[in-house]
Amino acid sequence: MTRDQLIDNIFSKKSYLCVGLDADLSKIPTHLLDSPDPVFEFNKQIIDATKDLCVAYKPNTAFYEALGAKGWETLKKTADYIGDKHLRIADAKRGDIGNTAERYAEAFFNQMAYDALTVAPYMGEDSVKPFLNTKGKWIILLAHTSNPGSSDFQLFSDGKKNLYEEVVTKSQQWASPDQMMFVVGATRADRIGHIRKLSPKNFFLVPGVGAQGGSLEEVSKEAITSECGLLVNSSRAIIYASSGKDFAEAARTEALKVKKEMERWL
Amino acid sequence: MTRDQLIDNIFSKKSYLCVGLDADLSKIPTHLLDSPDPVFEFNKQIIDATKDLCVAYKPNTAFYEALGAKGWETLKKTADYIGDKHLRIADAKRGDIGNTAERYAEAFFNQMAYDALTVAPYMGEDSVKPFLNTKGKWIILLAHTSNPGSSDFQLFSDGKKNLYEEVVTKSQQWASPDQMMFVVGATRADRIGHIRKLSPKNFFLVPGVGAQGGSLEEVSKEAITSECGLLVNSSRAIIYASSGKDFAEAARTEALKVKKEMERWL
Repeated sequence: MTRDQLIDNIFSKKSYLCVGLDADLSKIPTHLLDSPDPVFEFNKQIIDATKDLCVAYKPNTAFYEALGAKGWETLKKTADYIGDKHLRIADAKRGDIGNTAERYAEAFFNQMAYDALTVAPYMGEDSVKPFLNTKGKWIILLAHTSNPGSSDFQLFSDGKKNLYEEVVTKSQQWASPDQMMFVVGATRADRIGHIRKLSPKNFFLVPGVGAQGGSLEEVSKEAITSECGLLVNSSRAIIYASSGKDFAEAARTEALKVKKEMERWL
Repeated sequence: MTRDQLIDNIFSKKSYLCVGLDADLSKIPTHLLDSPDPVFEFNKQIIDATKDLCVAYKPNTAFYEALGAKGWETLKKTADYIGDKHLRIADAKRGDIGNTAERYAEAFFNQMAYDALTVAPYMGEDSVKPFLNTKGKWIILLAHTSNPGSSDFQLFSDGKKNLYEEVVTKSQQWASPDQMMFVVGATRADRIGHIRKLSPKNFFLVPGVGAQGGSLEEVSKEAITSECGLLVNSSRAIIYASSGKDFAEAARTEALKVKKEMERWL
């Protein structure tokens, strides 16, 4: 999916919501556990219930890998089921040397139909570049994450700037805003505005709204642009809104609340 | 595998060789391509030919993920085939928030029989801790990698120390040398001795010897300890020593050369 297509989708749907498909067998409604592929059944119903309200879906690969080869098959089927009208983000946080990064690109962009992959920046340029060979495919580089441990190294400073600022600045020499986004956590809204100044054109994928406590209002105020420039992710608050048979309906209700707030900002 | 068991294996075999099982369908001998699982067949023959010469095997997950769900099955079967007499390292370079890291631990340590997982440090403490709940299971944290891009952020400095030094120092507050190793690339041998001073007890997993140009002699001189403290990995130079029907025999010849040099240092 190209940048123009993504922006069109956002403004026509009046939404910049990304739904995180982090399905955990111990948390999905028990009535699904009898189906041949409970996680896929769960994802399908969540997708059906929310697809008009969001522009992206983001499965975190850990939840699928924990189910073995079968989970990997579910990850692939989920991308196919989402289809090409939504940005399909594999939240995999990969990052390796060049010849290995090429294999990851093969895995997520060719073997499976994902449009975007989250990538950790620690190994530098040659771990990023192999993902950029195909127009319409994206990397989403970790900049400043939403978790407590984000302060351990991301705030390491050379006296003028923190590591996360160096990542945001230097990586822009490697990839254009047509193929690179940044992960910027919602839990530190004060820093989002600052990162926006460092990267006026890049989309931000923003986790941490919902279960992790970030505020959609703060994030939007600080970082929205004329092209939107934001994908705000919510996982647990939407997909686990109910643990009963009404889980998909409850997910829709929660997604609709978020989407209604987003309309105000677009 | 506990630290004591690993050290025993090293000194009884007189080897600290780790063989990297990065099998690529486009590079393995063509006569294997007719077998039902060519990569597994390749791995089996490499393992049979080298198991008395090495103490660890390290598949890089990217090469398996590029083959889809079937590759994931091969990754699991490979761990089972290696067995518990060798340290089984999944070179996956994962790193995510706490509840997600728990799923990765489930994937690699329970669903599959790996003993150790490589982890990227960018997200900090809560991305590391969930891997430490089981004795005998290890994380191997990226410190200073062997690729060209390692200088992009790993050498970011606060004026007194580089980021990789901060990673080595701070992470030792989170995990003991019984469960944490560091990845230290062989291509910058001058820095290995320095990292050894910062972490006298931790094992180092050292890639970059062989195809990437690092020197086993330099690495050993700079960083070997009375408990050895080193696992030196070689992937392409061993597994692709021949592309013919004699590939396993050729791999053995290469592994034996490395092991003979290691004997001198133990």
